[in-house]
Amino acid sequence: MSASGSQPAPAPAPVRLRGLHASIVREGVPDEVAVEEPLEIRVDGEPLAVSMRTPGHDEELAAGFLFGEALVERAPALGPTSDFAANTVEVRGPLERDPGARRFYTTSSCGVCGKGALEEVAVHAPPVPGGLRVPRGLVAELPDRLRQPGFERTGGLHATGLFAADGALLAVREDVGRHNAMDKVVGWALGEGLIPLAEHVLCVSGRLSFELVQKAVRAGAPVLVGVGAPTSLAVSLAAERNLTLCGFARRGRMNVYTSAERLS
Amino acid sequence: MSASGSQPAPAPAPVRLRGLHASIVREGVPDEVAVEEPLEIRVDGEPLAVSMRTPGHDEELAAGFLFGEALVERAPALGPTSDFAANTVEVRGPLERDPGARRFYTTSSCGVCGKGALEEVAVHAPPVPGGLRVPRGLVAELPDRLRQPGFERTGGLHATGLFAADGALLAVREDVGRHNAMDKVVGWALGEGLIPLAEHVLCVSGRLSFELVQKAVRAGAPVLVGVGAPTSLAVSLAAERNLTLCGFARRGRMNVYTSAERLS
Repeated sequence: MSASGSQPAPAPAPVRLRGLHASIVREGVPDEVAVEEPLEIRVDGEPLAVSMRTPGHDEELAAGFLFGEALVERAPALGPTSDFAANTVEVRGPLERDPGARRFYTTSSCGVCGKGALEEVAVHAPPVPGGLRVPRGLVAELPDRLRQPGFERTGGLHATGLFAADGALLAVREDVGRHNAMDKVVGWALGEGLIPLAEHVLCVSGRLSFELVQKAVRAGAPVLVGVGAPTSLAVSLAAERNLTLCGFARRGRMNVYTSAERLS
Repeated sequence: MSASGSQPAPAPAPVRLRGLHASIVREGVPDEVAVEEPLEIRVDGEPLAVSMRTPGHDEELAAGFLFGEALVERAPALGPTSDFAANTVEVRGPLERDPGARRFYTTSSCGVCGKGALEEVAVHAPPVPGGLRVPRGLVAELPDRLRQPGFERTGGLHATGLFAADGALLAVREDVGRHNAMDKVVGWALGEGLIPLAEHVLCVSGRLSFELVQKAVRAGAPVLVGVGAPTSLAVSLAAERNLTLCGFARRGRMNVYTSAERLS
């Protein structure tokens, strides 16, 4: 709490907040904020990654993260000591490959340079399938179809949605970390047997960074659309892996950066 | 480039892009995107961290990052093999403490649970000084005073600004990673001998996550204001360390979450 004692104090730390939003009082006014808590992912008892995330769907987060890093090829089994109340999830190994000395904190980049990162993705991701055709106007409307109840209450959550080619919303996850929201959706799709996402469109509520394209490519998604701007490395990777990358999508309009031939 | 060959190709990867923005062509239209490239931070030849960042001010980024993690107490000297063209910066050790087995990728959380993270900050950050008083309306206007030329051209960059208590803008940095923009500003302040930032206000263009509050507390900043929403852990840490945390700041209005007594 404030040293001055002039305001109501938030819940004392540490707290084990669950769910998307938490109640606070600011200057006497009740309000809600997005929940951010660390999650430790362990593999056979060994800590592998810590991510600052919004609690919920933690198994999906672990599965999607490990898949995105090419450490598993299907949804992993949970280990015996998973304890979501303690912000840990344990995965049963073995992994597909040795993560080596790498320990992941929140996000990881695959390599030391753009070349290394791009090559790493090329090695571990199958080619994005080319068959899908989707109406351009439909893709540009998908961000408006994302359901974001947590964002509406807090203004502090990112969302990723998975859509069928006809625009049906299959899954949406909200998280303080945009990479986590993507991992949770990919983890959900893994559990549903939908990977590779050859007939689907991934949609994010924010910007399009390298790591989001990396995760989409790894999941085999042919189209990734976002409300925000792409980065240079996101465009490079999308071009190299033949993913259709669309940004600034709002109200039926968007920019198409790569592989526009999938849009009819 | 796209497999279809129907579009002009972006510059082939890998590229060594410099600066805030890069030119691309999308569907025949020239455009600009924010540059994202990995930077490896080495200490005495040993890789310590990889961050996906926007090139430029890389020395500041390394200094601010190491300071934020309490691995240095002042701006470190550069080592002999720093090569910004190769996306590496080498710092001359020794560090203040052993980073141990931790290797940082992009961002790090200080601990395995909220408790651990909060305690870690409490150990390594001196108390935020209490003396500063700033007009509430002035703080709420600071986001509008941030100069963001890179954002204006690309829509894809975050910014952090350092302001004097009278509202004068001392430094602003833009980056695809909001944590990097903060690290660069703190690194600049380190070099200028301004740390702890007892008489300053830090201002960010986006959301207020735990790591940004952590970096602000560590730099001794009494006030942190942002355009976006805070998270639960950001509010908890700000309250615990007596930092004045303000969010949703636009056009002279904002929410104040903690330590409002600094605002007159």
